[in-house]
Amino acid sequence: MSEMLKKIEQALLSFLPPENAYFQTVIDSMKYSLMAGGKRVRPMLVLEFAKLCGGSEDAAIPFACAIEMIHTYSLIHDDLPCMDDDDLRRGRPTNHKVFGEGVAVLGGDGLLTLAFETVLSERAVALNGFEKCAQAGRILARFAGTQGMIGGQIIDIESENKAISLERLKEMDRNKTGALMKAACLMGCISAGADEEKCRAAEEYADKIGLAFQIVDDILDVISDEQTLGKPIGSDKENNKSTYVSLLGMDECRRLSSELTSQAIDQLSAFANDTTVLKDFALYLRDRTN
Amino acid sequence: MSEMLKKIEQALLSFLPPENAYFQTVIDSMKYSLMAGGKRVRPMLVLEFAKLCGGSEDAAIPFACAIEMIHTYSLIHDDLPCMDDDDLRRGRPTNHKVFGEGVAVLGGDGLLTLAFETVLSERAVALNGFEKCAQAGRILARFAGTQGMIGGQIIDIESENKAISLERLKEMDRNKTGALMKAACLMGCISAGADEEKCRAAEEYADKIGLAFQIVDDILDVISDEQTLGKPIGSDKENNKSTYVSLLGMDECRRLSSELTSQAIDQLSAFANDTTVLKDFALYLRDRTN
Repeated sequence: MSEMLKKIEQALLSFLPPENAYFQTVIDSMKYSLMAGGKRVRPMLVLEFAKLCGGSEDAAIPFACAIEMIHTYSLIHDDLPCMDDDDLRRGRPTNHKVFGEGVAVLGGDGLLTLAFETVLSERAVALNGFEKCAQAGRILARFAGTQGMIGGQIIDIESENKAISLERLKEMDRNKTGALMKAACLMGCISAGADEEKCRAAEEYADKIGLAFQIVDDILDVISDEQTLGKPIGSDKENNKSTYVSLLGMDECRRLSSELTSQAIDQLSAFANDTTVLKDFALYLRDRTN
Repeated sequence: MSEMLKKIEQALLSFLPPENAYFQTVIDSMKYSLMAGGKRVRPMLVLEFAKLCGGSEDAAIPFACAIEMIHTYSLIHDDLPCMDDDDLRRGRPTNHKVFGEGVAVLGGDGLLTLAFETVLSERAVALNGFEKCAQAGRILARFAGTQGMIGGQIIDIESENKAISLERLKEMDRNKTGALMKAACLMGCISAGADEEKCRAAEEYADKIGLAFQIVDDILDVISDEQTLGKPIGSDKENNKSTYVSLLGMDECRRLSSELTSQAIDQLSAFANDTTVLKDFALYLRDRTN
């Protein structure tokens, strides 16, 4: 696992533009956020599904890097004063705090564009061929776009400080977080030339763990409030924000996250190869404590 | 020409995402700017070069739309308060004035992403095949990214209210404006399956008209100042901004824009078909009065 992580970090660096006397500021801004030590969940999913479908890690690496670039750009733009207005990300000042808002907007745009340059790069094509790269790029665009991640962010912006329905909350999370997870699993399958049945199973797996991930997030928010603020479970209604816990209650959330995790693991039976890593990953997401 | 424009407008509309109860705000934001009646210079270049190289207008349409989406997103982000802070664009309120800054950032991100979804769409692939679509997407990403348009925008941000050298001014314009012009001409060639020699000539043509375009812009700025403000030619040094006129003088600018236009037209000899439209286009850019 740490071997794979090292490979991803090195590859991410290698796809950044070379130093340039004129454009260095924006390259620095991109590098600052891209190399900030994320957990690399999405790239790992790309590589694991590629291997599971009989493909090679190396061929899938450009796709893995591209999805992490998309994820990183979304964080940079999300943190902007006109969006969530966050000063800190992963314990460090956010991109616009270091480089200014204008450069942060362009740094995000740069990573978004670089993601597609990477998927369609000579290196990616040499390893996967034109057809697979075009298909991976199409999936990335679809799930990162307005009918995916960006759509989820819009629901988020419009739901701020509002009570929303369970249906709307699910729609938001399915898009804001789930869409990129789906893209990751699918791009791994595509790199390996997997058939439609496997692609469908991968997408279902991503859908289930994505939703379970969000529910566990809400559970942990309440528990950590209880521990750090001494508030009783369920009393966290500041901002009037709807969460799975506020809408369904703690017990139902625990039941649902377990059910979704089981359903995700069930999907792995579509694959002939060893699925231990992806099974453990689903369980880890359910049982994590932070 | 107006037939072609109508085709482009219709195609742009057709590539926008369908109406969606959850995401409508961001789709409205994208549509507001994309359908604001631009001159569609870049899409026209795509289609003209496709025809010049023996390709079909219809096959090149998705590429033409994609480059206009990139151009439009760059305007939305450029107008933001943290960038140029403009309230008006093409005589209408800018995107963030209508939809708010957060939605404008996402609307720009949405168009940038949609550009790649369009180049790699089923429709584009059905008409051009996977290889040409992947190559067109790669060119779009390269020229729209940090080593192209975004790089030029960074130089622009960092040069604000500063006197800069002629070399830096050219580097800024080559990237900020010229890069997308090059991408447009090249994507047209690629759709038609043109050989390397033709691609090189198309890129050179774009480079020359791009630079001539900027020089004429600076000339017109001074002339329009003279007419509207009654200032003598060349006195416009507010903001201490370096322009081709301030660095080279009016006469040299006129000579240079003519020279570049001739050089652009010379490149058209690489093509066997009728080049009248592209020749006239270069002359129009040189002789325009606004």
